[in-house]
Amino acid sequence: MEALRRKIQQEAVGIGTEVVKVDMFLNHLIDVPLAREMGEEFSRRFDADDIDCILTVEASGIITALTTAMAMGDKPVIFAKKGERRNIGRDVYTAQVYSFTHQKENTIRVSRSYLKKGMRVLIIDDFLANGAALRGLIDIVRQAECTLVGCGICIEKGWQPGGRELRQQGIRVESLAIVKGIENGKVIV
Amino acid sequence: MEALRRKIQQEAVGIGTEVVKVDMFLNHLIDVPLAREMGEEFSRRFDADDIDCILTVEASGIITALTTAMAMGDKPVIFAKKGERRNIGRDVYTAQVYSFTHQKENTIRVSRSYLKKGMRVLIIDDFLANGAALRGLIDIVRQAECTLVGCGICIEKGWQPGGRELRQQGIRVESLAIVKGIENGKVIV
Repeated sequence: MEALRRKIQQEAVGIGTEVVKVDMFLNHLIDVPLAREMGEEFSRRFDADDIDCILTVEASGIITALTTAMAMGDKPVIFAKKGERRNIGRDVYTAQVYSFTHQKENTIRVSRSYLKKGMRVLIIDDFLANGAALRGLIDIVRQAECTLVGCGICIEKGWQPGGRELRQQGIRVESLAIVKGIENGKVIV
Repeated sequence: MEALRRKIQQEAVGIGTEVVKVDMFLNHLIDVPLAREMGEEFSRRFDADDIDCILTVEASGIITALTTAMAMGDKPVIFAKKGERRNIGRDVYTAQVYSFTHQKENTIRVSRSYLKKGMRVLIIDDFLANGAALRGLIDIVRQAECTLVGCGICIEKGWQPGGRELRQQGIRVESLAIVKGIENGKVIV
């Protein structure tokens, strides 16, 4: 998606060889027109797939999940919660997700009340690197006996194995921008 | 706001005397048309106030902050992050927020790069109870030498002191629904 690629080239900051910092438009300060455009692009790519709901994980996944839901005619959005919660109840699907950003293992949870057997689910997330978060969400979709339509990702780190491994398993992964690497602080798309 | 009050009366679940469970439409499964309507209502209430940006805190505050930003002509949204982060940098405003839901103290952070002196800021959050999160956000607005236009809250727990205390300090707090209490598991609006 050209607008996103341009934004990454102009504004994203590479730290070391691994960290792509996009908090100036995606995951701290939100560029709202860009968020809407990304939702519209996911809608175009998955509109023929007759989805019932969009699944993401808090926090920044919520942004594009919501704009995608709006572009697809106000589909419901479910966001998996991280860690222990009082208010979500005990009747949940869970998966373990290792976060490389925060260097800790998180439990993600989705209430069994909302993800129902047979639903056609589109997963949306902002980043795909090692694929840990996505594998956790996919695991939950399978526990719930739903159909995974595919995964829509804003930014994929092409040099990390997540995207390749998931596609090899036959999972449809659509990334709006694939980052090739970091050179002298510049992010190469 | 009538649509929200009706939704609370029909679907919210009261647990004990304190917990208002609204994860069936607000903070786990998102009712997208309702989220959009809440954004439009905040836009009506604050449209004359010439705001520069919307400030919220992850995770569920992002939803209504985003729909409000859209309704107000795509204002930028900044969401404060909780806890330690690698990717946000060290140059941040911070505040301590005690979460009664998770029974722990969180540090919330906003990058100094995005909240700039003199900005007119609207704070949006999904819940107001003791007011801890809101006080943390207000503290950050003041550290940044921004002007606080007001606070838009989806659901205020009327029996808890946060709203009263903030209004007594002269802060404009607009709540779309004020919950009066919980009776036998029913949430009274």
